[in-house]
Amino acid sequence: SRSYSITLLPGDGIGPEVISVAKDVLSLAGSLEGIDFRFQEMPVGGAALDAIGVPLPEETLEAAKKSDAVLMGAIGGYKWDANEKHLKPETGLLMLRAGLGVFANLRPATVLPQLVDSSTLKKEVAEGVDIMVVRELTGGIYFGKPRGFGSNEKGEDVGFNTEIYSTSEVDRIARVAFEVARKRRGKLCSVDKANVLEASMLWRKRVTMLASQFLDVEVSHMYVDNAAMQLIRNPKQFDTIVTNNIFGDILSDEASMLTGSIGMLPSASISESGPGLFEPIHGSAPDIAGQDKANPLATILSAAMLLQYGLGEPEAAKRIEAAVMNTLDRGFRTGDIFSAGTTLVGCKRMGEEVLRSV
Amino acid sequence: SRSYSITLLPGDGIGPEVISVAKDVLSLAGSLEGIDFRFQEMPVGGAALDAIGVPLPEETLEAAKKSDAVLMGAIGGYKWDANEKHLKPETGLLMLRAGLGVFANLRPATVLPQLVDSSTLKKEVAEGVDIMVVRELTGGIYFGKPRGFGSNEKGEDVGFNTEIYSTSEVDRIARVAFEVARKRRGKLCSVDKANVLEASMLWRKRVTMLASQFLDVEVSHMYVDNAAMQLIRNPKQFDTIVTNNIFGDILSDEASMLTGSIGMLPSASISESGPGLFEPIHGSAPDIAGQDKANPLATILSAAMLLQYGLGEPEAAKRIEAAVMNTLDRGFRTGDIFSAGTTLVGCKRMGEEVLRSV
Ligand SMILES: CC(C)[C@H](C(=O)O)[C@@H](O)C(=O)O
Ligand SMILES: CC(C)[C@H](C(=O)O)[C@@H](O)C(=O)O
Repeated sequence: SRSYSITLLPGDGIGPEVISVAKDVLSLAGSLEGIDFRFQEMPVGGAALDAIGVPLPEETLEAAKKSDAVLMGAIGGYKWDANEKHLKPETGLLMLRAGLGVFANLRPATVLPQLVDSSTLKKEVAEGVDIMVVRELTGGIYFGKPRGFGSNEKGEDVGFNTEIYSTSEVDRIARVAFEVARKRRGKLCSVDKANVLEASMLWRKRVTMLASQFLDVEVSHMYVDNAAMQLIRNPKQFDTIVTNNIFGDILSDEASMLTGSIGMLPSASISESGPGLFEPIHGSAPDIAGQDKANPLATILSAAMLLQYGLGEPEAAKRIEAAVMNTLDRGFRTGDIFSAGTTLVGCKRMGEEVLRSV
Repeated sequence: SRSYSITLLPGDGIGPEVISVAKDVLSLAGSLEGIDFRFQEMPVGGAALDAIGVPLPEETLEAAKKSDAVLMGAIGGYKWDANEKHLKPETGLLMLRAGLGVFANLRPATVLPQLVDSSTLKKEVAEGVDIMVVRELTGGIYFGKPRGFGSNEKGEDVGFNTEIYSTSEVDRIARVAFEVARKRRGKLCSVDKANVLEASMLWRKRVTMLASQFLDVEVSHMYVDNAAMQLIRNPKQFDTIVTNNIFGDILSDEASMLTGSIGMLPSASISESGPGLFEPIHGSAPDIAGQDKANPLATILSAAMLLQYGLGEPEAAKRIEAAVMNTLDRGFRTGDIFSAGTTLVGCKRMGEEVLRSV
């Protein structure tokens, strides 16, 4: 039987609850496919700040690096919001991404037929939306140098950051996106601001060059402001979107909200050859933490992405996805996706129902 | 009688058509309020590239600076898309903004009761949406230095830009936003990415400091990715939004598309003391240029903003706004906002109907 080591990073807020449920689902789906997991739980984010004083302890990064894949819950919370930058939970997440070299962040935004009414979009606009945003995750303005505070000629304080991309950074994320598009509906839209930014001009040039290696993929280019509009006007025009770190942060969240059910959406962050990082796109929801109200499906679906993209175990991944669909078909809903005529359940019970369907 | 000089910048595509109509409406509304205009038309964008070889001729900027307000149509088109940066129509627009020092860009996104069905959002989500995005327009990553192309340690090509804000830049845009919010529903949401970017940390700090001078305004702070979601989830939570140049570019376009009728939306860009720049938010729509199909209402409403914010002539502004509402109430629609049961008209006829209602 195949055996993998998984680092679990429960993190903050509802993180521990959803990770606990997702771990059970992952174990069962694995065992039914002859896969065996060794799990190791490590602290990250606010939990690590409270326990150890830093948002990403060295041991956590080391354990993550040595494992075959990393499954994370969520990080952050009001409690640490006023912390200085190096003591913010978010900084731990950025260090983890950089440390693992997970440059490609895959964020599906799919409107499930069972949940089309959750969307604030009209039914005919929302139904059938199935977008994959491929976001560059370890470069751009998030990590560019120089950055910091200083003063200008007038002696005033300034804050500054650098948006920067190199050819190899663009090439590797574009390659991932072309491959993803090829396995989907064969359409890739690269989003940039090449009418204003030099970093985007380089981006567009490289994507255009790479396109000649993927002739089966239909490529288009769109300015980010237009993309923000088109996602609302007609989201079905999009298949795969590739974009930089900050535009991807904004557009993937916008795309996810089109579905109206962000408690359902997983993500995968993959590296050149090391372990990937898999996490729900929702936050730590401190207001409902510990109340057994969280929707664990995004984390469960992140476990499916872990199997698919992280371990190359598509059968086990499909098993989990099918179990989630089946559970929705049987009418079970957490509070965030509840509607009249369905059965309201908590986090644990939702996990049990998924387990029953695996 | 009061007399003002107005620089008209028709620009490209549908620009000349909509400017011609808006000019007539402005003249009539003015004369009914005892205002007299001197108009001067100057080339900008692609039109200027074709005629003179640069996207913003010196004479155009000089004329604009000497006038009391500037009314622009639209710029850009496929024809010049492949031009080098300094020969792009967009570069002319950026030079015009910088040249006029119009640091505050006011972009209303209002769902009109007559057009609520145009929105792709559900009626109950869209109706009553009335957001003003105040975008910083002459700073940040659009203008920050250093910028350009170079090579990194590995000898690879890189493209880079600098996101930078100084205290006085943040203070002046925040002040405008507080004043705007005060005259609206008293709520200001400042959008940034202060959990990652130093430029945003400075932004948030200054907005927080200024808040103590505007105690009647309720201030909140939101990360840009969350704002992109919240605009779709529940747009009615927003009154006034203030944000930097690039986030404002993205979010104002997103907000405008919530209305489903971007052919209706005006904008105002104002400076410390010089003339303001007023323009529709839509583009030059080269595909329908010269066919009398364009919706002139966004430009007509931009003329109303010109009266209101540029010249301090609120009565004439209200006259135009009322005329537009009346024309919609009488059922006239251009193709972009047409629906069953209304009367389809072209650009000129729409202008005539507004004139009739002024
Ligand atoms: C928490 C924050 C640093 C992070 C980001 O901006 O990348 C989050 O918004 C995300 O998208 O995963
Ligand atoms: C044309 C372009 C340079 C411009 C911008 O990005 O500011 C446009 O998108 C706008 O919002 O007015």
